[in-house]
Amino acid sequence: MNSSTELTLPTIADIKEAAAVLEGNAVKTPLLESPLLNEKLGGRLFIKAECLQRTGSFKFRGAFNCISHLTPETREKGVVAFSSGNHAQGVAAAAQYFGIPAVIVMPRDAPAMKIANTKAYGAEVILYDRETENREVVGEAVQKERGMALVRPYDDFHVIAGQGTTGLEISERFCELGLAPDAVVVPCSGGGLVGGTALALKARFADVSVHSAEPEAFNDTALSLAAGERIQVHPTAPSICDALLMPIPGAITFRINRHLLAPGVIASDAEARQAMRVAFEFFKIVVEPGGAVALASVLSGRLPIKGRNVVVVCSGGNVDPDVFRTALAEN
Amino acid sequence: MNSSTELTLPTIADIKEAAAVLEGNAVKTPLLESPLLNEKLGGRLFIKAECLQRTGSFKFRGAFNCISHLTPETREKGVVAFSSGNHAQGVAAAAQYFGIPAVIVMPRDAPAMKIANTKAYGAEVILYDRETENREVVGEAVQKERGMALVRPYDDFHVIAGQGTTGLEISERFCELGLAPDAVVVPCSGGGLVGGTALALKARFADVSVHSAEPEAFNDTALSLAAGERIQVHPTAPSICDALLMPIPGAITFRINRHLLAPGVIASDAEARQAMRVAFEFFKIVVEPGGAVALASVLSGRLPIKGRNVVVVCSGGNVDPDVFRTALAEN
Repeated sequence: MNSSTELTLPTIADIKEAAAVLEGNAVKTPLLESPLLNEKLGGRLFIKAECLQRTGSFKFRGAFNCISHLTPETREKGVVAFSSGNHAQGVAAAAQYFGIPAVIVMPRDAPAMKIANTKAYGAEVILYDRETENREVVGEAVQKERGMALVRPYDDFHVIAGQGTTGLEISERFCELGLAPDAVVVPCSGGGLVGGTALALKARFADVSVHSAEPEAFNDTALSLAAGERIQVHPTAPSICDALLMPIPGAITFRINRHLLAPGVIASDAEARQAMRVAFEFFKIVVEPGGAVALASVLSGRLPIKGRNVVVVCSGGNVDPDVFRTALAEN
Repeated sequence: MNSSTELTLPTIADIKEAAAVLEGNAVKTPLLESPLLNEKLGGRLFIKAECLQRTGSFKFRGAFNCISHLTPETREKGVVAFSSGNHAQGVAAAAQYFGIPAVIVMPRDAPAMKIANTKAYGAEVILYDRETENREVVGEAVQKERGMALVRPYDDFHVIAGQGTTGLEISERFCELGLAPDAVVVPCSGGGLVGGTALALKARFADVSVHSAEPEAFNDTALSLAAGERIQVHPTAPSICDALLMPIPGAITFRINRHLLAPGVIASDAEARQAMRVAFEFFKIVVEPGGAVALASVLSGRLPIKGRNVVVVCSGGNVDPDVFRTALAEN
């Protein structure tokens, strides 16, 4: 049975096993805090800086864990993935580590930096048209033709367990600090990062609220959580949050998230850009638009922080210089 | 005897004691690496990301250690410091922690962000004119009038020991990795950071080369190291590296550095800006011009990296958005 179709969901034991697999390969990213910003907010804000992860986003965790769990015979044939850019780089870098070929199917309008880096990690990149083609169809065709294993971006047991190591590290750091997090907010596209993070955190801190954060036009997880079933959105406008353009929650991830998550929060593009500026000014980190939506939801007051310990995951930093310059210019 | 005039120089024992003092108060900043950039450079480049330190630069380490070593009677009267901005913030934040007043003498043309943050940490800021006034004279006048202790920016036993914890952390991380650094490059103004770092590193890795990095017009440490005595430069042009505008090495720091340092390296303003772009692209961190000169010296080929393990300290990230936007726009 392919790991991605297993009916069992990952548990804290699987996340701990993923952490052992990632040890020495993934970065244990820091949990940053700014006393100056805390004073303005009236609470303690912690940033889990996944932009400092290998390949510039959390995606390396899940990709590496997934590929490491393939059988050697399957693995040596190589892997294929479809991705707007961060999963692409994560899979390409992990494949490079294992010395196997990787084919990545990416939208033609993905950020130039993400396409260039994916190639630089040695992957073959196939571009498709987001308007007229379906990336899953393109990806699965490559998979069949070349006999390569598909590394799904979120609906996969080992990918979810790998992303969950983000939550495990947050949990371990809070134990070191002798504190408990009140709320943890996580950027959400297919739901693998927030799902894995919630699994890890709830195992240690049963009362913590874990929230998904999405661009306002792609609020399918927020709507689905409210409805108790998967709802697809049909956005009429694009978003600068190129990493978070999924219109429907993952089937497997939603089975986790519907039980574990508190209500989802959203952020506008302008709020995401403002969060990028705050990350620049107070934390000295580079965050991409989609990576900034969780921070944006707190700064915009959509999630209360006064008197609380709130963690936001800044999930990636792969942003073209022009987009970053534009975000810094607004004020 | 005032600690700043002690004839004894700090040793590795003093740096370890400073590390114990800083434990839980300063950030143990990460040592970042980019496999993509390593491939381009043909060696392993490690960034000690001191821009992620509390107050956005390494200066918090020395300021906190110094203030913690004042007697309670001296400390309660408050502290005074003169600084172009990073030491200002470090002293202000450390004073805030101890609940004591701080007066900071800053040049009128210091970056707006540095002045604003120093005030935000609760310090009283006195501005002076870099062209017509001497900051040491202004600072010492305040010190006498108000009976406050002066926290010197580099020529102080406990400040040097505090900055040395940066080197201690590099050393500890390399031991964890089972590697030895071949060269460590450190931005240098008065020489406290590079001196303390050299003391810490040489205690574990006797063969490591530790280099100071300076803006090309303020290459007094490079010249002094070559001459074997302190040499003052008289720059006719300014530099964007506002944190590194000292024209002469410190008296105490040079007593350490003349024995421990390999030849100094320099970087132009354009090279510093290019290094800021590389830090943005490959490491997702925000580095200020002066904080980027060590990285710049490696990227410009002034310090060989092929086949070697080279560490560069990115010493601060307090840069105004417009300066950062300009650096990103060049290419």
